[in-house]
Amino acid sequence: MLQESGIDQNEPPKGGLPQFGDHLHDEQQLSDERGLHIDKVGVSGLRFPIEVCDRTSLTQSTVATIAMYVDLDQSFKGTHMSRFIEVLNSHGSIISVDNISELLLEMKERLNSSNAYLEIEFPYFISKKAPVTQQAGLIDYKVHFDVSLINEGIDFAMTLKVPVTTLCPCSKAISEYGAHNQRGEVSVSIRSNETVWIEDLIKVVESCASSELYSLLKRPDEKAVTERAYENPVFVEDLVRNVVTKLKTDSNITWYKVEAENYESIHNHNAYACIESG
Amino acid sequence: MLQESGIDQNEPPKGGLPQFGDHLHDEQQLSDERGLHIDKVGVSGLRFPIEVCDRTSLTQSTVATIAMYVDLDQSFKGTHMSRFIEVLNSHGSIISVDNISELLLEMKERLNSSNAYLEIEFPYFISKKAPVTQQAGLIDYKVHFDVSLINEGIDFAMTLKVPVTTLCPCSKAISEYGAHNQRGEVSVSIRSNETVWIEDLIKVVESCASSELYSLLKRPDEKAVTERAYENPVFVEDLVRNVVTKLKTDSNITWYKVEAENYESIHNHNAYACIESG
Amino acid sequence: MLQESGIDQNEPPKGGLPQFGDHLHDEQQLSDERGLHIDKVGVSGLRFPIEVCDRTSLTQSTVATIAMYVDLDQSFKGTHMSRFIEVLNSHGSIISVDNISELLLEMKERLNSSNAYLEIEFPYFISKKAPVTQQAGLIDYKVHFDVSLINEGIDFAMTLKVPVTTLCPCSKAISEYGAHNQRGEVSVSIRSNETVWIEDLIKVVESCASSELYSLLKRPDEKAVTERAYENPVFVEDLVRNVVTKLKTDSNITWYKVEAENYESIHNHNAYACIESG
Amino acid sequence: MLQESGIDQNEPPKGGLPQFGDHLHDEQQLSDERGLHIDKVGVSGLRFPIEVCDRTSLTQSTVATIAMYVDLDQSFKGTHMSRFIEVLNSHGSIISVDNISELLLEMKERLNSSNAYLEIEFPYFISKKAPVTQQAGLIDYKVHFDVSLINEGIDFAMTLKVPVTTLCPCSKAISEYGAHNQRGEVSVSIRSNETVWIEDLIKVVESCASSELYSLLKRPDEKAVTERAYENPVFVEDLVRNVVTKLKTDSNITWYKVEAENYESIHNHNAYACIESG
Repeated sequence: MLQESGIDQNEPPKGGLPQFGDHLHDEQQLSDERGLHIDKVGVSGLRFPIEVCDRTSLTQSTVATIAMYVDLDQSFKGTHMSRFIEVLNSHGSIISVDNISELLLEMKERLNSSNAYLEIEFPYFISKKAPVTQQAGLIDYKVHFDVSLINEGIDFAMTLKVPVTTLCPCSKAISEYGAHNQRGEVSVSIRSNETVWIEDLIKVVESCASSELYSLLKRPDEKAVTERAYENPVFVEDLVRNVVTKLKTDSNITWYKVEAENYESIHNHNAYACIESG
Repeated sequence: MLQESGIDQNEPPKGGLPQFGDHLHDEQQLSDERGLHIDKVGVSGLRFPIEVCDRTSLTQSTVATIAMYVDLDQSFKGTHMSRFIEVLNSHGSIISVDNISELLLEMKERLNSSNAYLEIEFPYFISKKAPVTQQAGLIDYKVHFDVSLINEGIDFAMTLKVPVTTLCPCSKAISEYGAHNQRGEVSVSIRSNETVWIEDLIKVVESCASSELYSLLKRPDEKAVTERAYENPVFVEDLVRNVVTKLKTDSNITWYKVEAENYESIHNHNAYACIESG
Repeated sequence: MLQESGIDQNEPPKGGLPQFGDHLHDEQQLSDERGLHIDKVGVSGLRFPIEVCDRTSLTQSTVATIAMYVDLDQSFKGTHMSRFIEVLNSHGSIISVDNISELLLEMKERLNSSNAYLEIEFPYFISKKAPVTQQAGLIDYKVHFDVSLINEGIDFAMTLKVPVTTLCPCSKAISEYGAHNQRGEVSVSIRSNETVWIEDLIKVVESCASSELYSLLKRPDEKAVTERAYENPVFVEDLVRNVVTKLKTDSNITWYKVEAENYESIHNHNAYACIESG
Repeated sequence: MLQESGIDQNEPPKGGLPQFGDHLHDEQQLSDERGLHIDKVGVSGLRFPIEVCDRTSLTQSTVATIAMYVDLDQSFKGTHMSRFIEVLNSHGSIISVDNISELLLEMKERLNSSNAYLEIEFPYFISKKAPVTQQAGLIDYKVHFDVSLINEGIDFAMTLKVPVTTLCPCSKAISEYGAHNQRGEVSVSIRSNETVWIEDLIKVVESCASSELYSLLKRPDEKAVTERAYENPVFVEDLVRNVVTKLKTDSNITWYKVEAENYESIHNHNAYACIESG
């Protein structure tokens, strides 16, 4: 190929210095002189089909967006991006707490790093029965795992984004009839000693709102959720305090961050509140 | 430079055929053999500061996202992308119905095309007084101009996205107290003989919802909008029908498309409706 | 419950007229006086797990975003939103050309409409082997089905969004070395007499770019795609013309719209081109 | 109005306890029993027109997305959301380091809090001259201010997102001709003793990439940037190291976090790297 191309191997182009030989040049293995360790380097925005285990060991198929990073010692110019993709494709698609650790260990080995990081976000579906008619419908929640292997220790933080109904206490208190309400989203991040199941944490959050959401509501159900929301007005402040109050009763949970954002029905902006432990 | 680079001019690299001479090669001017006219070609996703004229000839500064296209005759390989940027940068930042036509004419000339197209989207701010306290606050709306110069004729379509409050008639009718409500967005696109002012079209849409939105609401205002929404329940179906009913009374409007989307407070999905004229 | 609530049944609140009786009031069934047929009304932004059939009848699990609409006769005030959800949840998750028609028929019947519409968008994964090492890696494409049942006829339009590499012919022609290149996205929408398989249309598009993309590339593969892109420079204009040229050779394809957008590596805006048949 | 509505004032509806009297009930002022301080509560997603001062004291009009929070003492049920909007609307639209502090002080006073927080993100335009032809064109950058008033101290962190061209050293080294390149984005966050001007930090970042971006490039300019990129290949690792190396020479900068993300032209995912000080 070189002869065909017309490029004179011995005379490098002004632009740079390609090197050809028996092995293709490994530019990343060159040494680096800047004396700077890199905290995280790798691939991001990668979509991949996965299966998630639930509490009953049943799996659910979904599609994740994934980021995979390692740290890079100051002496090396670059990491080997393709190895992340190899590790992911050979890992298989089943994601559970155990095999996430294996995936991180493999990244650490293949990439000769001290630390490895995985960020994985996916929609998770739960079949919920409408409150009165008991008709079932699927509804989705966003789940995000932030997992780090730093030296030998695994750090696992799970975030759930749970959509809810919030009805305003002030609006209810001052109005003759009605009360403004809207969809809101609660984002709960936790660290825990033992596994906390997605379904359980969702239930905790939903119990703290004016009402939980359902995809399928017949008229008796719509009546029930409308009245229930009116009976349970919550500010964003109440929403985060309610959730935190429940999380604090669970000694299994070692850290939390709870955020709530309401897409206010009377404004073109949102209301927001946040409590973080410690 | 060529001598320094080490590339032998007379021996083209396998990869292609760079041409150097007095003038830099104009690749786009090459002829094309595929016999295919291109409907639109140009630049998109370009952010640019503009000033928009309002009804009183006052201008408002905002930031637009812009796309600029022309058609391309089948005989030419490519258009000249940089000329779009030159036209835009030299046009000045004031946008009004008249000078949009000038900008399109200039695109047509500079790019030797039959047709020219401009898509420009920007936030537009209106100062609104709260309904009871009359306190003023700015609120934003999305405006989108779709303008075409096809042969000699200008076609101008304006789209406004107006956020509103919608309260559900069914929920109200069947519940003992309360009614689910939410923020919704009405997207109105029109063509008209004479200019329709943004503020006027916004007022039409807002009068069709359960309530309009305000950024600043003190408690007496919140009471007023809560009660007003309860007194004026509308389905998405009502919302689009109300808007269309008003547009039809205006003979100046020659075409419309009205869409409404509610971010349902009781579901994790939206309700949607659409009516288009003709 | 009414007695407990304190609302005097016989004296309706100023705000409205709730009706209670044996059956919950069906507000949507009320007649409408505005004389306006609604083109589309239903649910949007609904996420749902599906399985998609491929050419070999194997299925792939993925997550779709779905919109479901019907038209609404002018005499009715509203449609029955919950029925869309019932139809979807009972349909099962396998999506293929045949059962999409069934789903639309069911919507039409359950909702007593003339027309029914389904928009369904999902990521679709293909395992590709790197060009030299033949190592396999999954890569994702966006697929969008737009299906309408209008009176009795089914109209099916499929859109694929295919990411590719594009290298600029002008940059290559005028520069001593190198050529700017970038990721681009080709969006192809088609209507056809017989089914066109996703994989086949993806191959057509990828063959028209400077290079196709791969998730997993070892160094010999990276060398191959780099050189291949340099050997096959294409403007956005070339990209859409190449794709259209191939589509036109297939008499099975009755309509097409081809768009290409490059995330230009030398600008903070994109280059865009579009050809539509007829 | 109460008489008209038909609601018996003395008999509260089952759903709740509205209170009517001379003054509208201040629900937020109620005391709270859960013993939970709230870290941040306020408004988010608010769009507002602003003017930003540059180094020469000239102002530039743009549109910001704003969040405004305070902390909330455990004894209070809620904050007063409307006061944020009042403070913002009365502040005027000129944003500079000094008056941001004033805005925070005002929030703290109006909302009786210990702490106040402001997040403000906006596009910022710079006129750049193309490298050879010197023709000028506007190009946009994203700027984000994170400002906190905690007790008495102001903490100001500025983040710039700077789009650049990156060309891959490995691809260049192993290929006979060409090298894959793409648009990337560098996100630099800093804290400093004295003000660091946006333009200066942008220049630092741009000097670390394979090439900076321009909106307007004629052919001689395109040749120059193509060759410059080829002469200056950088991995994402190089990009963050180059930026950090320069930041470390400036003792004015007390903290930094530098991230780079490349929209790889040969993959459908991105490459990412990050270094944070300390």
